[in-house]
Amino acid sequence: MVNLEELCKNACEVKNQIGMLGCDSKNRVLISAADMLLKQEKEILEANAIDVENGKKNQMPEGLLDRLTLNHDRIQSMADGLKQVAALDDPIGEVLSMKKRPNGLIIGKRRVPIGVIGIIFEARPNVTSDAFGLCFKTGNCVILKGGSDAIHSNIAIVKALKAALTMEGVPETALSLIEDTSRETAAEFMKMNRYVDVLIPRGGKGLIQAVVNQATIPVIETGTGNCHIYVDETADFDMAINIINNAKTQRIGVCNAAESLIVHSAIAAEFLPKLYTKLKESNVELRGDERALQYLGAAKELVKPATEEDWGKEYLDYIMSVKIVDSIDEAIGHINRYNTGHSEAIITKDYDEAQKFLNEVDAACVYVNASTRFTDGNEFGFGAEIGISTQKLHARGPMGLDALTSTKYIIYGNGQIRK
Amino acid sequence: MVNLEELCKNACEVKNQIGMLGCDSKNRVLISAADMLLKQEKEILEANAIDVENGKKNQMPEGLLDRLTLNHDRIQSMADGLKQVAALDDPIGEVLSMKKRPNGLIIGKRRVPIGVIGIIFEARPNVTSDAFGLCFKTGNCVILKGGSDAIHSNIAIVKALKAALTMEGVPETALSLIEDTSRETAAEFMKMNRYVDVLIPRGGKGLIQAVVNQATIPVIETGTGNCHIYVDETADFDMAINIINNAKTQRIGVCNAAESLIVHSAIAAEFLPKLYTKLKESNVELRGDERALQYLGAAKELVKPATEEDWGKEYLDYIMSVKIVDSIDEAIGHINRYNTGHSEAIITKDYDEAQKFLNEVDAACVYVNASTRFTDGNEFGFGAEIGISTQKLHARGPMGLDALTSTKYIIYGNGQIRK
Repeated sequence: MVNLEELCKNACEVKNQIGMLGCDSKNRVLISAADMLLKQEKEILEANAIDVENGKKNQMPEGLLDRLTLNHDRIQSMADGLKQVAALDDPIGEVLSMKKRPNGLIIGKRRVPIGVIGIIFEARPNVTSDAFGLCFKTGNCVILKGGSDAIHSNIAIVKALKAALTMEGVPETALSLIEDTSRETAAEFMKMNRYVDVLIPRGGKGLIQAVVNQATIPVIETGTGNCHIYVDETADFDMAINIINNAKTQRIGVCNAAESLIVHSAIAAEFLPKLYTKLKESNVELRGDERALQYLGAAKELVKPATEEDWGKEYLDYIMSVKIVDSIDEAIGHINRYNTGHSEAIITKDYDEAQKFLNEVDAACVYVNASTRFTDGNEFGFGAEIGISTQKLHARGPMGLDALTSTKYIIYGNGQIRK
Repeated sequence: MVNLEELCKNACEVKNQIGMLGCDSKNRVLISAADMLLKQEKEILEANAIDVENGKKNQMPEGLLDRLTLNHDRIQSMADGLKQVAALDDPIGEVLSMKKRPNGLIIGKRRVPIGVIGIIFEARPNVTSDAFGLCFKTGNCVILKGGSDAIHSNIAIVKALKAALTMEGVPETALSLIEDTSRETAAEFMKMNRYVDVLIPRGGKGLIQAVVNQATIPVIETGTGNCHIYVDETADFDMAINIINNAKTQRIGVCNAAESLIVHSAIAAEFLPKLYTKLKESNVELRGDERALQYLGAAKELVKPATEEDWGKEYLDYIMSVKIVDSIDEAIGHINRYNTGHSEAIITKDYDEAQKFLNEVDAACVYVNASTRFTDGNEFGFGAEIGISTQKLHARGPMGLDALTSTKYIIYGNGQIRK
């Protein structure tokens, strides 16, 4: 096993070569990689079985164990994912703008790979092939650091992907897996800015915070989503109930699920009992402020008082906080105070309120009359997604292939000097 | 004096309000700020005199002392700078793309302010008003942390700028200066990511490295420039000499000046003596590899051998390293090994070599047949510049107003839910 610095250096040394690969070559590798995953399915499933057994021994929670477990369908779906990425347009080489300056210089801005991308993730082995596919398609080298819980699976998957690289005559150091899963090695990796151009953490709040706090490599923060839905006094009740039900219950464990409801006081008494009836079908617990409790009827089993802590909480569960406000300004103030910059929605029929909400709410994605669940690379038409950025630099919101590119200025002159 | 955290919090609290200001309001503030600098010129010059006197006492080098010293013309030029920024188009609110999805959702990507921008800089007081102008024009709050050498000047300049904000009814916390110039406070500031969205260091290598290593706030690295010029075997000698002379001597202390020359071996014997004759006029010392010394005549006063250290050096002086190569691949390899990702140029008449150089050199700006000195926001037509990014995330190359913006997705629906 090479040491960490060597591994990073090896990636850095081939990054220009990988960045220069034509789209056809890259697609050939991706399709070979898909085939290799299926060819080496037996080895991958055997390795995965060790991780799953260890997980059970360590009393891994059921949900995580499910995410960790591979089977034929899941390997097929990883392979299909790589083929889908192969079918996407290659953003590399696109010239985003080109202008002639008064002195005759022609200045163009061309999309280029970032270089070496580090991905730090938790126990989901499918991330290994997804991240490789997206980074490689955009001409980047990728260094993966997965969790110890999935290490055997990851080693087997990376072996298959590397075999495809080698088969296509591409340096296998375009992809690396850090096999030492200790925290010390993770911390050391985050400081490899001599070789690594960007780090993307994928996982829970703890992981992301650790990366932000320790990394000297630039980080794209992908984040948690404390998403709100504000029901304005002019809202269509049926639409509001339908959207809230979808955003809360269609899939609870995801960052674009709604966690908090804000209702205008003028309609709360009439609206909340109707909403309650719908959400009760899915056993959604509502945690309300004083007025919300009054309208909902505090005695009900699924209604509880909200504490200050609830306003900032990403439940990822069948729970929703409920706040009553007297104006849209109060709603926006509340959202901008407690949100995580992910996705926020207003339900309204009022033109000015809709525009005000779009203008003043500070988040990656702001919706009028739609479910927050649409914040997703595929739903946005990007064809793929490497994560959802909740920071403001480089990329904000769902990140497709473009987010894995940088630009360089190309300048055509004919002897110009500066005066 | 408020404490650091309070100061950052105060900026954060008004950032949405500042971000919502219309372009007319922002321009009024910028023009008032220009007037205020001139109205308070006496106070600013008095404060500056204290800094200059302290600088002399502390044996500040002549060049730095010159940059520190203000006079009427320099204050006038700071004021003019603010008025120029007022005259620029406001990028905020521009919708970069808007598409309708199959389900009817209309998804737009709108330019928005970043929020709170921290600028850490050294002893140039003009940065104070420049940075304020660019950040404020783009609807951002700005927190400045200048060097101790210019603290009296900075306090006086910020006082004038804040007076303009107050006069126009805008919260003066849109602009803050950290008056405590200790390293401890700087280190604490770099970790204020709860309140500050981005840090831009402006200064020498030491300052930038300190920020990159210590900050938990996302950093836009503006950098040093070890810029190369490669003279291909087909180069027009007159053009090459003219461009090299310009890139090396037109202004030596700047990051886009050329520091290193690479010459194809096929023309070196004929080319180098001609170049030497020209550069001798400006007393440029050439530090060559073995073959370069042979062609230049090692005995000459301005010719010295290069050491390994020379290849990576940003001289900012009348010195240039000279390397002889046998192919463009060798030239590109050398550049990609030693450059700082700033600006690189090839002088050639050959179409394929020009394209190869543009494709394979990894830098923010790559030139064919032009001086590296053009890497500059004004020369690129941006109207202003906050610095030159040598990293690959968010912005690369000269950064104009656009680099001080983020985006948010605005989504217009009519009841869509996710299936």
